[in-house]
Amino acid sequence: MRATVIYGERDIRLDEVPDPTLSTGGDAIVRVVASCVCGSDLWPYRGITPTEHPHRIGHEFVGLVQEIGPEVTNVKVGDFVIAPFYDCDMTCVNCLNGVSTSCLHGGWWGSKDRLGGFADGGQGELIRVPHADGSLYATPELPAEELIPSLLTLADVMGTGHHAAVSAGVTAGSTVVVVGDGAVGLCAVLAAKRLGASRIVAMSRHADRQALAREFGATDIVEERGDEGVARIKELFDGVGPEFVLECVGTQESMDQAIRSARPGGMVGYVGVPNGGAELPIRTLFGTNVGVNGGVAPVRNYIAELLPEVLSGAIDPGRVFDLTLPLAEVAEAYAAMDERRAIKVLLRP
Amino acid sequence: MRATVIYGERDIRLDEVPDPTLSTGGDAIVRVVASCVCGSDLWPYRGITPTEHPHRIGHEFVGLVQEIGPEVTNVKVGDFVIAPFYDCDMTCVNCLNGVSTSCLHGGWWGSKDRLGGFADGGQGELIRVPHADGSLYATPELPAEELIPSLLTLADVMGTGHHAAVSAGVTAGSTVVVVGDGAVGLCAVLAAKRLGASRIVAMSRHADRQALAREFGATDIVEERGDEGVARIKELFDGVGPEFVLECVGTQESMDQAIRSARPGGMVGYVGVPNGGAELPIRTLFGTNVGVNGGVAPVRNYIAELLPEVLSGAIDPGRVFDLTLPLAEVAEAYAAMDERRAIKVLLRP
Repeated sequence: MRATVIYGERDIRLDEVPDPTLSTGGDAIVRVVASCVCGSDLWPYRGITPTEHPHRIGHEFVGLVQEIGPEVTNVKVGDFVIAPFYDCDMTCVNCLNGVSTSCLHGGWWGSKDRLGGFADGGQGELIRVPHADGSLYATPELPAEELIPSLLTLADVMGTGHHAAVSAGVTAGSTVVVVGDGAVGLCAVLAAKRLGASRIVAMSRHADRQALAREFGATDIVEERGDEGVARIKELFDGVGPEFVLECVGTQESMDQAIRSARPGGMVGYVGVPNGGAELPIRTLFGTNVGVNGGVAPVRNYIAELLPEVLSGAIDPGRVFDLTLPLAEVAEAYAAMDERRAIKVLLRP
Repeated sequence: MRATVIYGERDIRLDEVPDPTLSTGGDAIVRVVASCVCGSDLWPYRGITPTEHPHRIGHEFVGLVQEIGPEVTNVKVGDFVIAPFYDCDMTCVNCLNGVSTSCLHGGWWGSKDRLGGFADGGQGELIRVPHADGSLYATPELPAEELIPSLLTLADVMGTGHHAAVSAGVTAGSTVVVVGDGAVGLCAVLAAKRLGASRIVAMSRHADRQALAREFGATDIVEERGDEGVARIKELFDGVGPEFVLECVGTQESMDQAIRSARPGGMVGYVGVPNGGAELPIRTLFGTNVGVNGGVAPVRNYIAELLPEVLSGAIDPGRVFDLTLPLAEVAEAYAAMDERRAIKVLLRP
């Protein structure tokens, strides 16, 4: 089969690799229907995270179950399934506590699983899925073609935006600022809207992203950043700032922007993967009673809540995909996102 | 009048100073009935925070209103009043949002207020109180003598322990670990208990503090610290840790202990004043979805909730005072706390 391999900075190739095989009894083989490129894939692509040896890449996919191990009972051959951006058993204490990203037996796509088998990266044709009963979530029936982009967002970006909002504590009537206008930030706007936020400010400088943010529920756009951005945000909310800020980037600048924008006693929900030397300024947090909550989003735990709204069309997070390419053009998919020619690229095998 | 002045490391003196006078129209003069020494007073006492010039010290007191400015309407001469460890107007947006420590017009005892008058330190005989209508909270009637220690804790430590629990999100049935067995940590145990926590672990190595923690509601005591402490805590809670950890010290070690002890998805409520190089390890927080919330406690906002329980005897936080001295022996009060001969010292003029 073909699978995406990163060789180094800006060196993405589609390689011929062996087909995966079942090995643990509880695993499954899924044929990918759609996958995509994540903002976090750009860190190794840009060389910010060094690539020491070539390895599989990709971690968001939906597909059809092609084969299952003898112990698998929750999904069957032919099911359309959503996989979170990690594997998990959904039976350990952390999964049951709602934090499946801390599954005691889980792992990450594109690496060995805890039982020694290899779990393929998501940007390929076939994936061996460990803990298929936990990792995979089957839709009630085969979905319509036009729903596939939104279903794919449940593998990562929509669940991650939702996690930012839930971690902050957004609820009916909340005031919210979203830092970051990538796919996750836009999904965070949508998540805040569906949770009932009364005012949602999207911080964005790109007209296309501003437009989508407004369609997702943003009531205001702020283009300023840094001190000017903080001043503008405070001005919009009683001179003190909003209750909640959703940080969806992961840089020191974006985290500082978030913390300084929140009102005293407010909360920053953060899901941007921390990179570089991002630190939390504890004295500022202490003095202002601004809290910080979030992390790597347990999106598997959110599928049951979000899927019905995707299937009914109540939410349409798949609109964050503004470019679709065949898997054969995966290198161009990375380049388009790196150069901000696309918000997020969907790949079809 | 006499007032406490810090001159430098381990140099605390009771000086004769001018009586305060009213100056703003909205201020009041309070005759101190009881004050005390705070754990945070020990930072300058120990020289960890340098004392560059002699200054008044102390910030926790209860007393009787002796004189009021013409604009004061919420308290009257003769009232018994509790003052928080800061002054605040209780009318600005931050006060109304529940964060009176971020009052737009407030300040700190022992320094100039925003209108240029001097607000005395708390460890003295008379205090000029700015924003008396906001800063002071009068009891319905003159309290019985034996209630005075518990009433005094509403000025700081009980409200601060409560803030740790509220910031973490402690509620009925919660599992809680408290890091720190000083007065604030012990009050945090009591706060978690009254909020309905089902299991409360106090981390303490001192028999007298362990005993009081148990009387305040601790169900378990853990003496280990560091890696051993983390392992012991995880063992007590399903191998993964409790939902909530209340950090009541403020050192890097105690914050690390707290963050590493919380279960994935858990929350650290912190109120220990950060000192030294305390930093928050964002990658650990991100990977485990442990949040951090808290800060300088808006205790003024909590008096209305906590006072009735103190007056009824339902809670008795004043038991953290295990030594009472006359104000004339204030230097000995500091020494006793510094040398851990006392948990907390109450001073009577």
